[in-house]
Amino acid sequence: MSDEPAVAIDAMGGDFCPLEPVRGAAEYARETGRRVLLVGHPDAIRKTLSHCHTEGADLEIVPAAEVIGVHESIASIRTKRDSSIHVGCRLVRDGLASALVSAGHTGALMAISKVVYGLLDGVDRPALPAPMPRRGGGYTILIDAGANVDCRPEHFRQFAVMGHHYARRVFGVENPRIALLSIGEEDSKGNDISRQVSHILRETHVNFIGNLEGNHLFHDRADVLLCDGFVGNVVLKVSEGIAEAILEDLREEMVKGPLRRLGALALRPVFRVLKKKMDYAEYGGVPLLGLKKISVVAHGRSSAKAIQSALRVADTATRVGIVEQIAREIEVLHEAEQRLGG
Amino acid sequence: MSDEPAVAIDAMGGDFCPLEPVRGAAEYARETGRRVLLVGHPDAIRKTLSHCHTEGADLEIVPAAEVIGVHESIASIRTKRDSSIHVGCRLVRDGLASALVSAGHTGALMAISKVVYGLLDGVDRPALPAPMPRRGGGYTILIDAGANVDCRPEHFRQFAVMGHHYARRVFGVENPRIALLSIGEEDSKGNDISRQVSHILRETHVNFIGNLEGNHLFHDRADVLLCDGFVGNVVLKVSEGIAEAILEDLREEMVKGPLRRLGALALRPVFRVLKKKMDYAEYGGVPLLGLKKISVVAHGRSSAKAIQSALRVADTATRVGIVEQIAREIEVLHEAEQRLGG
Repeated sequence: MSDEPAVAIDAMGGDFCPLEPVRGAAEYARETGRRVLLVGHPDAIRKTLSHCHTEGADLEIVPAAEVIGVHESIASIRTKRDSSIHVGCRLVRDGLASALVSAGHTGALMAISKVVYGLLDGVDRPALPAPMPRRGGGYTILIDAGANVDCRPEHFRQFAVMGHHYARRVFGVENPRIALLSIGEEDSKGNDISRQVSHILRETHVNFIGNLEGNHLFHDRADVLLCDGFVGNVVLKVSEGIAEAILEDLREEMVKGPLRRLGALALRPVFRVLKKKMDYAEYGGVPLLGLKKISVVAHGRSSAKAIQSALRVADTATRVGIVEQIAREIEVLHEAEQRLGG
Repeated sequence: MSDEPAVAIDAMGGDFCPLEPVRGAAEYARETGRRVLLVGHPDAIRKTLSHCHTEGADLEIVPAAEVIGVHESIASIRTKRDSSIHVGCRLVRDGLASALVSAGHTGALMAISKVVYGLLDGVDRPALPAPMPRRGGGYTILIDAGANVDCRPEHFRQFAVMGHHYARRVFGVENPRIALLSIGEEDSKGNDISRQVSHILRETHVNFIGNLEGNHLFHDRADVLLCDGFVGNVVLKVSEGIAEAILEDLREEMVKGPLRRLGALALRPVFRVLKKKMDYAEYGGVPLLGLKKISVVAHGRSSAKAIQSALRVADTATRVGIVEQIAREIEVLHEAEQRLGG
């Protein structure tokens, strides 16, 4: 057994908890030999584990008395100090786990991680990156995808630096192209804030390539696309919604008559490719950026497979030292600002 | 020949001008017996007409010396007082045409229409509605889809009233459900402005049903979805982008091998349905709302068929008296506000 700290999973988070988180964790532990801490109601977890294949899996249950519901307000969340997210974050803070993965309430994971871990110096708000699959392979990383609804221009600068490192370290992009999501490619297009942001980004050392429009998200135009969390959340949900609507329409139309059924059969591999591309399970989860420790947001509808991918993301983020990278770079940014200011 | 004024088309607007606008106009004129004014360079129009089937079409060329390019700034647009859009708007203002259709520079059409026609009393900004096709048929009308980037809460109230009448009169929805696009269904979710807007909308007489999220756009949840023009433009382009990306992916995958080709052949009607659903040519164009006269925005990539649909939208908007309806309703809103204020 290595000295490496374990990785923690919120067993009580997600639409299909505890089954899918526990199953995903067990499979990940078996596959990688990693020690995984299952945080939540011990009885529920134990019962689920009895249906899982756990031979050779290094699992440990860490009890948490409370559960945060998907629709709970941030105010009520704060009082549940024994929730699985709280307990999981404290494990990470205290060095007993390298990261926490949760498919539960995203806002809660964000708020609790922020309080328990603390923000990196120079970061005002944690950011949520969302890798959006694009044509021809690869991802455009949308940041911020829902963490911060009212943003000032300096927040975009921090998103740019965080997005740069995320794309570089986790996605292996050498010199990520950073763009601002706007409603026209000219700097003059956009709203008040986007015009200020284009101006500011031209003065940072990231590779800022200018404004892009919504449709460019799905083409190989930029590696990181910046927006505020309101727009990011809308974009994410519109993309999910339309992709699902198209697939559902296809599914419905394809069973109308024997000829179509046959055609659908022949094209099954095509639809599998398409579905896989739009499947969250493929990249599993994203780390919250700008915090002193790592929390990974998994999709609410995560399957065991998605949980496995999210645990992999957590371990990658730890291994590449995403926190240290961002901390260093934000410091550089901060010093540059002070030089400019002084 | 009727006494009804003609309808005008900007022959110099759109990616495929003058060919597609002129062809679409000729076909519309032939089909409906309507008189259509073709506004633009007489030589270019005449040359294009010589390749069109114009027998029995009541067409007239109205010369306009200048053309507005797609990327021109609003400042340079204002000086081009002989552009096809300027000339077209003046025809409408002076009662020589009932409406102008243009597939050209949307911002220019908006700015020029606003100056030439004027805004209705009580309307601060014209709004652009975008009908988004949803599952199971029908449309959710997104308003504002790109006209107004920085909106105050009172603008949303005006969008609500205008969207209500557009859905009612043009789409025949008896009591349109109006919702606000946000990042959670609770009133407390959203950004500063969306929280203020939910509050204000609860006090108007439109059928406000609360907040909806991005994915709800494609389901039968609301008839009108309110957002500011920055978000609306992003949503529109993201939707276009992802739908295109999916169809392109499908097309690419479907020709890989003879079995897939056969399958694709069998499913051709399915893809036709899908493509038709996402095709702008189907609804063609949308009227700018809140002005004293009618201008219809057609998609930049409009085909002749899309232009025909846009001309039909222009005639429908005229026939149902959309301008008068909105004028009356905004007046009621205004009076109610004054009563509340006093």
